[in-house]
Amino acid sequence: MELKPFFDYIAQFIPLTAEEQSILESKVKVRKYLKGQFVVQNGDTCKYENFVLSGCLKTFYIDNDGQEHIVMFAIENWWTGDLGSFITQTPADYNIQSLENSVLAQIYYEDLEQLYIQIPKLERFFRIIIQKAFISSQKRIINNFSLPAKDRYLKFREQYPQIEQRVPQYMIASYLGITKEFLSKIRNQLIIE
Amino acid sequence: MELKPFFDYIAQFIPLTAEEQSILESKVKVRKYLKGQFVVQNGDTCKYENFVLSGCLKTFYIDNDGQEHIVMFAIENWWTGDLGSFITQTPADYNIQSLENSVLAQIYYEDLEQLYIQIPKLERFFRIIIQKAFISSQKRIINNFSLPAKDRYLKFREQYPQIEQRVPQYMIASYLGITKEFLSKIRNQLIIE
Repeated sequence: MELKPFFDYIAQFIPLTAEEQSILESKVKVRKYLKGQFVVQNGDTCKYENFVLSGCLKTFYIDNDGQEHIVMFAIENWWTGDLGSFITQTPADYNIQSLENSVLAQIYYEDLEQLYIQIPKLERFFRIIIQKAFISSQKRIINNFSLPAKDRYLKFREQYPQIEQRVPQYMIASYLGITKEFLSKIRNQLIIE
Repeated sequence: MELKPFFDYIAQFIPLTAEEQSILESKVKVRKYLKGQFVVQNGDTCKYENFVLSGCLKTFYIDNDGQEHIVMFAIENWWTGDLGSFITQTPADYNIQSLENSVLAQIYYEDLEQLYIQIPKLERFFRIIIQKAFISSQKRIINNFSLPAKDRYLKFREQYPQIEQRVPQYMIASYLGITKEFLSKIRNQLIIE
């Protein structure tokens, strides 16, 4: 079943009855994105939360100087979306673009609000998921200020184990907030060590 | 009743029965902190989530160069704590210090876990609260990269309406990521405009 990874993921946090699973399944839409397609574009409202069944995506924003900053990557079993835009149904700050052909399980805003009523347990699930997202966002701010680039790179490899072979180096450099040349220097150092 | 602001705040998000309110009340501890006291110290585990009944606190961390970075302030009706440390019961990254004599409503980790079982509605409440915290943390990252310091200062004044008279200028400068001198320049410009 296409949604198996989705339900396996949820089962790590809350038990769903067969009936609840089928209610939820009826509200989840599976959608394919080609490499290069946008799931969310800055200025549009983020209408759905996305669980990655397969593929790889980046979340980024463009600063005043036109510079791209990568905030996160999402691979299999990650959630992605512009949560601020989704929750408040207002224009997104971020862009989310598919870096490979990707398959996403999507839940629309109105459907999720209804699901919270039909399956109150989902409150717990999303409470835990959002906590995790919040903590990882906080850790990232701290690490950016307090860890040298090499340690940030090592943490990145830990957090996204298989991603390095899947995305271009300049994107990893953007995520780490360093130049491509500096990233290359760090990698060479690590090979020698 | 001392906890009235706490229950008024919760009532904005979920309705509690008298019985639920009394269960919750039995788990909430009211604690006073003197100006200068620490609620959380980096390296210790954050044992409780804190709702500010009165007073003012700052959350900050110290970078590798010994520089203090203020991540947030908390005033009346705000929540504060090191969520990462609280959720995982591991050492805190942040420090939280009372900037005035403050009174906090505290919920201990074990009590909250038990409360989620006794009053499942609290899952919804904390799901919404943590969403709000996450969104505001994300907005702050974006603003730091994409807004000029003057606009960040104006947003700060909007978010913490009465705080400017309560905390020293150098702390506001630290929160904004600028020098005290630059903040003073921005304020003078705004008076002239």
